[in-house]
Amino acid sequence: MTTLIKGGQVLSPAGATAADVLVDGERIAAVAAPGVLTEADEVIDATGKYVMPGGIDAHTHMEMPFGGTHSVDTFGTGTTAAAWGGTTTIIDFAVQAKGTSLLSTLDKWHEKADGNCAIDYGFHMIVSDVNESTLKEMSACVDGGVGSFKMFMAYPGVFYSTDGEILLAMQQAREIGATIMMHAENGIAIDQLAAQAVAAGRVDPVQHGLTRPPELEGEATSRAIQLANVTGAPLYIVHLSASQALAAVAEARDNGQNVFAETCPQYLYLSIEDLAKPGFEGAKYVASPPLRDKSHQPDLWRGLRTNDLSVVSTDHCPFCFKDQKELGRGDFRAIPNGIPGVEHRMDLLHQGVVAGELSLGRWVETCSATPARMFGLYPRKGVIAAGSDADIVIYDPAARQTLSVETHHMNVDYSAYEGFEITGRVHTVLSRGRVVVSPSGFTGSTSHGKFLSRQLNQYLN
Amino acid sequence: MTTLIKGGQVLSPAGATAADVLVDGERIAAVAAPGVLTEADEVIDATGKYVMPGGIDAHTHMEMPFGGTHSVDTFGTGTTAAAWGGTTTIIDFAVQAKGTSLLSTLDKWHEKADGNCAIDYGFHMIVSDVNESTLKEMSACVDGGVGSFKMFMAYPGVFYSTDGEILLAMQQAREIGATIMMHAENGIAIDQLAAQAVAAGRVDPVQHGLTRPPELEGEATSRAIQLANVTGAPLYIVHLSASQALAAVAEARDNGQNVFAETCPQYLYLSIEDLAKPGFEGAKYVASPPLRDKSHQPDLWRGLRTNDLSVVSTDHCPFCFKDQKELGRGDFRAIPNGIPGVEHRMDLLHQGVVAGELSLGRWVETCSATPARMFGLYPRKGVIAAGSDADIVIYDPAARQTLSVETHHMNVDYSAYEGFEITGRVHTVLSRGRVVVSPSGFTGSTSHGKFLSRQLNQYLN
Amino acid sequence: MTTLIKGGQVLSPAGATAADVLVDGERIAAVAAPGVLTEADEVIDATGKYVMPGGIDAHTHMEMPFGGTHSVDTFGTGTTAAAWGGTTTIIDFAVQAKGTSLLSTLDKWHEKADGNCAIDYGFHMIVSDVNESTLKEMSACVDGGVGSFKMFMAYPGVFYSTDGEILLAMQQAREIGATIMMHAENGIAIDQLAAQAVAAGRVDPVQHGLTRPPELEGEATSRAIQLANVTGAPLYIVHLSASQALAAVAEARDNGQNVFAETCPQYLYLSIEDLAKPGFEGAKYVASPPLRDKSHQPDLWRGLRTNDLSVVSTDHCPFCFKDQKELGRGDFRAIPNGIPGVEHRMDLLHQGVVAGELSLGRWVETCSATPARMFGLYPRKGVIAAGSDADIVIYDPAARQTLSVETHHMNVDYSAYEGFEITGRVHTVLSRGRVVVSPSGFTGSTSHGKFLSRQLNQYLN
Amino acid sequence: MTTLIKGGQVLSPAGATAADVLVDGERIAAVAAPGVLTEADEVIDATGKYVMPGGIDAHTHMEMPFGGTHSVDTFGTGTTAAAWGGTTTIIDFAVQAKGTSLLSTLDKWHEKADGNCAIDYGFHMIVSDVNESTLKEMSACVDGGVGSFKMFMAYPGVFYSTDGEILLAMQQAREIGATIMMHAENGIAIDQLAAQAVAAGRVDPVQHGLTRPPELEGEATSRAIQLANVTGAPLYIVHLSASQALAAVAEARDNGQNVFAETCPQYLYLSIEDLAKPGFEGAKYVASPPLRDKSHQPDLWRGLRTNDLSVVSTDHCPFCFKDQKELGRGDFRAIPNGIPGVEHRMDLLHQGVVAGELSLGRWVETCSATPARMFGLYPRKGVIAAGSDADIVIYDPAARQTLSVETHHMNVDYSAYEGFEITGRVHTVLSRGRVVVSPSGFTGSTSHGKFLSRQLNQYLN
Repeated sequence: MTTLIKGGQVLSPAGATAADVLVDGERIAAVAAPGVLTEADEVIDATGKYVMPGGIDAHTHMEMPFGGTHSVDTFGTGTTAAAWGGTTTIIDFAVQAKGTSLLSTLDKWHEKADGNCAIDYGFHMIVSDVNESTLKEMSACVDGGVGSFKMFMAYPGVFYSTDGEILLAMQQAREIGATIMMHAENGIAIDQLAAQAVAAGRVDPVQHGLTRPPELEGEATSRAIQLANVTGAPLYIVHLSASQALAAVAEARDNGQNVFAETCPQYLYLSIEDLAKPGFEGAKYVASPPLRDKSHQPDLWRGLRTNDLSVVSTDHCPFCFKDQKELGRGDFRAIPNGIPGVEHRMDLLHQGVVAGELSLGRWVETCSATPARMFGLYPRKGVIAAGSDADIVIYDPAARQTLSVETHHMNVDYSAYEGFEITGRVHTVLSRGRVVVSPSGFTGSTSHGKFLSRQLNQYLN
Repeated sequence: MTTLIKGGQVLSPAGATAADVLVDGERIAAVAAPGVLTEADEVIDATGKYVMPGGIDAHTHMEMPFGGTHSVDTFGTGTTAAAWGGTTTIIDFAVQAKGTSLLSTLDKWHEKADGNCAIDYGFHMIVSDVNESTLKEMSACVDGGVGSFKMFMAYPGVFYSTDGEILLAMQQAREIGATIMMHAENGIAIDQLAAQAVAAGRVDPVQHGLTRPPELEGEATSRAIQLANVTGAPLYIVHLSASQALAAVAEARDNGQNVFAETCPQYLYLSIEDLAKPGFEGAKYVASPPLRDKSHQPDLWRGLRTNDLSVVSTDHCPFCFKDQKELGRGDFRAIPNGIPGVEHRMDLLHQGVVAGELSLGRWVETCSATPARMFGLYPRKGVIAAGSDADIVIYDPAARQTLSVETHHMNVDYSAYEGFEITGRVHTVLSRGRVVVSPSGFTGSTSHGKFLSRQLNQYLN
Repeated sequence: MTTLIKGGQVLSPAGATAADVLVDGERIAAVAAPGVLTEADEVIDATGKYVMPGGIDAHTHMEMPFGGTHSVDTFGTGTTAAAWGGTTTIIDFAVQAKGTSLLSTLDKWHEKADGNCAIDYGFHMIVSDVNESTLKEMSACVDGGVGSFKMFMAYPGVFYSTDGEILLAMQQAREIGATIMMHAENGIAIDQLAAQAVAAGRVDPVQHGLTRPPELEGEATSRAIQLANVTGAPLYIVHLSASQALAAVAEARDNGQNVFAETCPQYLYLSIEDLAKPGFEGAKYVASPPLRDKSHQPDLWRGLRTNDLSVVSTDHCPFCFKDQKELGRGDFRAIPNGIPGVEHRMDLLHQGVVAGELSLGRWVETCSATPARMFGLYPRKGVIAAGSDADIVIYDPAARQTLSVETHHMNVDYSAYEGFEITGRVHTVLSRGRVVVSPSGFTGSTSHGKFLSRQLNQYLN
Repeated sequence: MTTLIKGGQVLSPAGATAADVLVDGERIAAVAAPGVLTEADEVIDATGKYVMPGGIDAHTHMEMPFGGTHSVDTFGTGTTAAAWGGTTTIIDFAVQAKGTSLLSTLDKWHEKADGNCAIDYGFHMIVSDVNESTLKEMSACVDGGVGSFKMFMAYPGVFYSTDGEILLAMQQAREIGATIMMHAENGIAIDQLAAQAVAAGRVDPVQHGLTRPPELEGEATSRAIQLANVTGAPLYIVHLSASQALAAVAEARDNGQNVFAETCPQYLYLSIEDLAKPGFEGAKYVASPPLRDKSHQPDLWRGLRTNDLSVVSTDHCPFCFKDQKELGRGDFRAIPNGIPGVEHRMDLLHQGVVAGELSLGRWVETCSATPARMFGLYPRKGVIAAGSDADIVIYDPAARQTLSVETHHMNVDYSAYEGFEITGRVHTVLSRGRVVVSPSGFTGSTSHGKFLSRQLNQYLN
């Protein structure tokens, strides 16, 4: 069974070129000059549209346990919403609980996800219990297709690792070629500030932001960079939100260190003003690092242009406002952390293209090509090229839409982007050659997605 | 007439993938997964080899008048040597003489080059007489396919422009979307140091290096960046050689300014020690900026990795040791400036890949893809993609060769790289679909190459 | 004849200490603990007041020829106004005209000043004609007590020196231990911007500011620093006004280079908003560099605290609004450059102490001790210490005054600080032991001041 | 009883001036021009010598408990040795043990020191148990004349404080105007590296240096600076040894933050090569931070010149090679940390003056004036001025001496500077008006020194 996508503009980090794409089964068979290829079982007309590699969201949390509850998207609902939004691969996180092994954790996550995803998926491993056995298992994880390990400098008592533990894990990562991902906030200092706020009766959602100052993200980012420098490990800073952290990353990159960073749409479009909305409304916007003052946003857009920010992920972690966010009424520390977004990343960043913040090439690069290379999926994913998986988005740059909880497909009772007007919209989505979203709706299945055994980072200096 | 290149590894900035390439006439018709395409008039077996976009040397000087003599490669000999070395496009410089117009200069250079090139070629324009008429003509040059204008902060009395003239040209460039290329050395200060050296009887070639300290390249680079900042013009620093200049470029790029830089193989491999060779031997290595202390080299390699250096060009400007370099015996200031190299760039940089200094992707990116994007040739040149010109190099990464005046094809009586051992060698070269170099030798013609009317820079932030 | 100043707080860069000061003739004979010394011909009660070294204004222009007119304060009126404001030493500028010698220039300035000053004075030399003879004369100037040479990167055709000329003068300065003072603005580029403004009919005073962007002060400052770096000369940046320039100075100082800078009260208190006042009013505020956006002011105050700005001078250069500033009605380029201020420096900076911007010690240091050390007057001037000249200001920190043309003593028809309310006021001023200002008024004489033959800079790293 | 010190050069941070000093009892009564004062009970001829404020060593550890042993100098022997070397004030550290209170700690240290010191002394407080009661007691310490609190980012399980504890202490310091002193090394990471070394059988003294890389001092310094930034507390980095840490301090100071740093003579003169001496000899040089590669030394000297390093202290902490350093044979971690030096600081830094590394003024400033201002002793100490304590050193800049365990007066069985040839030597020392060292020997008494109740830091921006 072959499909010919005709008449579109094929996108890559270098921009747009007119070409036709032939899909044969699950793979792209050829990319040809217009008119060279004519025969196929099916033909899709992409005239006036972009033909681009499917989005790769390298940071999602489906069904994630957090403070006695779970993020509300299952792998099924979450990956379906992703597909609706033009994302054809997610990399989710398996979460080691203290006292458990990495491999049993991985098994548990396979159980949750395998057979339940609408699109392909991989895992990073969250390491929260560094010990000799954990360090040894990191190598087995790499063999199991999981070559990236996330650690936390925040959340003491939960995910937090000491600098000594981070050092040990980085040494091991260096040894086996794996990448350390870092949640870089000084959680030890932050917890004091948060406790002081609550003790003083300052308990509203905005306090979540005020007790996590950007200087403490900058500090932790610098510290992670120096630990990586001492050990020689590649480092990937997740969800960078603050100018201070960006400056630390830029300096390390100028020095040629293997340091990379992602940001998220919420840091580009939302701000501490949302956290400060009247009543408990701000709880919808509680995530860590917190939404910042708007003055950070131009720096983040610039970082995306200069490649000091290499990737845009969502940190999708949906908790319902009702019942879940409610847990933190009276103490902002108990508000489940997370903002839903897996469905809107491609659209929100295209809006950056429309606004002149980002080139077309950087849109594709930060949302698809680079995450593929960074996390060992390239050229299987992240590019429209012969031999690659036929994960293809046909995107209509002229369509218009309004984001809303009324229309989104994520399993959560609010939208952080309620009422946002967007130019551009997904037209058709193929996942491994199969049309999963078409103008008529979702045509995929949650048993379609397959686990991706990833190679090691291919993007090192 | 179709050609199928089978079995090779197709290179792009993202790395290597197994694919076959179908050429139809002058263009690439399709890139296909191995085995998908089978029929063609001719088949080239590329098994075990790289299939890469032809090199683009964005900085050459063929038949250039300099101090009463000319660089010795004609467009014919120079482009033939380029082809031998895997370069399928050069961008040479039309040189405005004081008191003449840009358009008449362009005509003159067309006369020299048209019909006399073995490969495709374009022009930048050297502006050495800024006045109202020159500024107006810049727009006509863009219409004529020449959208990049080189200026000099060195060579007072010859090419030198004042900061005021640079400002005016940059304002005009900003207006019309053109790029300013800058030779960034403080020539006014340097001329004093050089005159002092000669007055003190220090006349040997090494004085060329000693009187052009790297601080004065750093200074001029910073100055050019600030003038570009004030005017909003895109800026491209040519032949960057010094750590101080690199630091200035890196800072501007971190700030999101449209500043780019190239370096050259001679700054990566040769040093002031060559300039200091006994007798007059050092004259072979006289170019501006001068060869530096070796301590700058690791910084330059790092800059290529971090993309603070975006392009590798040669500044190919050959003068024979005999008769030409001789002119400066007794006064280093009279030594014609220039080092031959158009033939060896791809090999010398592949040697950087072999040595672990550069990834395969960055080799292709700095030597072909980026210069194509930077100078408005992309995607016609600089990529193996459907619809692109079939400028293709089949490169054998395992072959070995020794560089020497005995074997090179440049029309000059010495090699600056005499005796260098290289791993890797060009196997076959296609220029617009025609095989111009094959294992049996040069099969092209100096009437084959066509003038490239270039678009504006496509690489801006 | 002895005088005992009793009961005051003696100020130094380290702060305030209770001590009595015995003056014997022109010198300080002793500084003693309160009560130790009791006998003197006269006793001045300084209870509740500061006893501080007289202010040193290292940058004034009395009777300076500029564009066919002269600054309106003579050495007599200007030094009298200075004394009123607590300044007991000025260093003015002898201005070499093109085609004249340094020594004849110096003679001419001695003629103007000798016997006509109310306080002691020295000269810097403005070099505007660099040639072999000028360079040789620099050494003779040092012998004549003038060891600091000011050059201009602005005012082409008038004071401007090329980078080559600057290099030569710096080499000579390095040789003889002299300091180069630099007006750091890229005048070549600025002149183009100014001509464009006038050509476009933008002729109002505010255009003076808009055509001299801070980036071009930052650029020139960096350039001067690099030329100083290459030559090894000490460098003193005059009237620094822009954050960009401050950053360049701070970096050079961190690197241990002998680079120093002054700022002026007008850059701390006035802004481009003054230049933009309706009608031609802005002409009162035309000086170069121009008054900047207010966002630069916090950086300048911080620079004074961190010692990246070492000195506060006034650049006092008064032109009457009527008749003189008028010359530029219709073309801002013809407005004589300069703001009157020699009388108000000590008060305006004390206001910074009151506002918490500066410590008491830094007030004394930037306004007296450092200029003394920087320009070879220490410990003769700039300190209350045994053996030093009895240039002493008794300052009442609690008095209040309002600045105004109605009450000031400068010979100019407006005040740039009209209506400013100041806490603090000069009570008594001694110049070499003689009371020249007392609560009852000016008691000095314009024949009292003597020429100061200065040593070389004593403040080098 | 009065003493007149005649004919010398009185030193201050501004340099040297000829003046006579009259001492009356414990204080300086007057500083007078030569010949003004003639009568006194005693006259000391200082012709050809410097008359300078006594040295202030702000970092010593007498009788300090460490790993089951004590540093071997008592307050009696240590302060006597200090006096021999021209130091007339020490500030030692009271060491809070876990589970004890600050005030009881202070009492204990008063017991040790009171009545047993040859010169005046003060205390800093080491905080190793941060809790509510400790935080409250900080204020009482300030009332007791102890306004500086040292914390450790190294030595987990002993002195180490978490970032949260540091934050709390800094908030309190900000509140009460106290200064936080920081041992800035990432001890958590270092302990892992040290454990790995021992596990791998690398147990020699040089491992002490190799397992404490300079990057981890730079990191901790940056972290301390950011915590100080968030809380607004003044910060003083003790014993800075690494270029990376200096860069962090310089940046913070450029930004106007109240960050200060000291270095020590051992980092200026000794290096990791000493730690690597054959056998167990290297143990003599074990201190933390460790001696560094010599490449750091030029940066440290430059930092002293630029005032990014404000103070030179010794971190004097003597342990005998025999019996004490021996404890770490077979495991470098058990070697008591410390290098003896209180006697040699003034001489070693004068050697820097002789070598052209430091000006005479900076010698006095870094070794006496600044520590006095930094730690609330000024102008009682740190200056030759009327009203100040007569802590005076008469120093012979031309004398020569050789440092050696044979001749030093510290109570320790080796010299870290054995055989160092020094130009310059203490001639006479007065402590509060009493001659305690004269050319004939020590004439003081260990009951002479008094506790100094210090004011708060007077050196803040």
